[in-house]
Amino acid sequence: MMDSFSQKPVGAQALGSDPKKADPIEKILLERLLKLPILARPVGNYRPALKAGKQLYLSGQLPLIDNSLRNFTGRLGREISLEAGQKAAQICTLNALAWVKQELGGLDKVKQVIKLTGYVSGMPGFKDQAKVLNGASELLVALYGEAGRHTRSAVGVTDLPLGACVEIEYLFEVK
Amino acid sequence: MMDSFSQKPVGAQALGSDPKKADPIEKILLERLLKLPILARPVGNYRPALKAGKQLYLSGQLPLIDNSLRNFTGRLGREISLEAGQKAAQICTLNALAWVKQELGGLDKVKQVIKLTGYVSGMPGFKDQAKVLNGASELLVALYGEAGRHTRSAVGVTDLPLGACVEIEYLFEVK
Amino acid sequence: MMDSFSQKPVGAQALGSDPKKADPIEKILLERLLKLPILARPVGNYRPALKAGKQLYLSGQLPLIDNSLRNFTGRLGREISLEAGQKAAQICTLNALAWVKQELGGLDKVKQVIKLTGYVSGMPGFKDQAKVLNGASELLVALYGEAGRHTRSAVGVTDLPLGACVEIEYLFEVK
Repeated sequence: MMDSFSQKPVGAQALGSDPKKADPIEKILLERLLKLPILARPVGNYRPALKAGKQLYLSGQLPLIDNSLRNFTGRLGREISLEAGQKAAQICTLNALAWVKQELGGLDKVKQVIKLTGYVSGMPGFKDQAKVLNGASELLVALYGEAGRHTRSAVGVTDLPLGACVEIEYLFEVK
Repeated sequence: MMDSFSQKPVGAQALGSDPKKADPIEKILLERLLKLPILARPVGNYRPALKAGKQLYLSGQLPLIDNSLRNFTGRLGREISLEAGQKAAQICTLNALAWVKQELGGLDKVKQVIKLTGYVSGMPGFKDQAKVLNGASELLVALYGEAGRHTRSAVGVTDLPLGACVEIEYLFEVK
Repeated sequence: MMDSFSQKPVGAQALGSDPKKADPIEKILLERLLKLPILARPVGNYRPALKAGKQLYLSGQLPLIDNSLRNFTGRLGREISLEAGQKAAQICTLNALAWVKQELGGLDKVKQVIKLTGYVSGMPGFKDQAKVLNGASELLVALYGEAGRHTRSAVGVTDLPLGACVEIEYLFEVK
């Protein structure tokens, strides 16, 4: 799944097409062989990102790759392994970063990652929501260092839009 | 259900009693034959709205009409149809707007709708949380235009306070 | 459970060791025979608290006492009584206040409690999420008066990290 993901990035705002133009944060992404996905269409009548004062609010991101959830549907503890859930949380974060770039003009315009709220679809008794979300948190810390260390809530829910296994909402402080 | 809702609005801050005094946003509500409900009592020891700096935070709103959930209890995918869920999301939003008017003095004091967090009580496997929330989002866009287009997270949960089928939390930017 | 909780507080930032140094808010805590718990280790790669501008964001707090959930695991409507759920919400809040003190240097640095988001793990059909959260809200109002009266959302979920029965996220405005 990740192979085709890695090979089919982005679009106008593709990163990697010209590494010399990539900002420092994008260079770290490239070194980790990660690319920003195509900007995902909102699944309703709302906007994916909104800047208010010094804060950038993002809508809940799903683990979409090229607008498809692929195998990232179902519940932790049944169809989705812990590892797949962590990968889904990482992909949510890549989608978030694609919107950050679109809205701010570059990933390096983030001053601080303030908060994540992560919803994990799990079977009754699944308790490892925090481990799942580490797939998002670790990427943000790898990219931004101390500025990527955020507050977070992890919650277990029944079902998420389109049957996604993970949904994450992000709040950033802007430079 | 909506008939009695439409006929039993508000109170001191009634809208519609004097259309000439209605602000521009309220006039759009009137044109859509919608009225602000009676301010709903919080179901706990908290406040329904709070202004902090340029932001107005609202507590999670339930689809209360005159302090009653009426038929808006139960789960999507069982007692509650998609259409009823969307109507519930609209009513949550009318309650939110009633508090906006109470706190700010008029619906036209909103600069931007920043964010909605919508919780939808659903049967296992219900995946249309986003469609349900469109009942809220479309009203806000109809009223405020671009300033009504917000970020959003939609989440499926088991149960909500009082057995409500939908609960929505709102964040506004104030002029 | 609460006995050992009351008797085993804190650490460097212990309150009660020198009541003369306690700030006015801590004095109220003492009068209620409540003490701040040991700062709880985050259960993932994130930070427990973050100040951004005039706002202090806190990660979702669990009802941990000395880094253990003790009996506060399971679901409302089954293992956890309403009273135990309310106590759990109070302990979440004590943990939140321990972080407030750590980050701001004193509980009296809070200008306003802005918002709580409370997640309650419940059996299907459990509808008293709001009553559970009153265990948190009432403590904040007792400590801070009007400045403690906050907005709030209460949501029923399946499972929470580590099997906790309650998780609460806090947002404060700083003086």
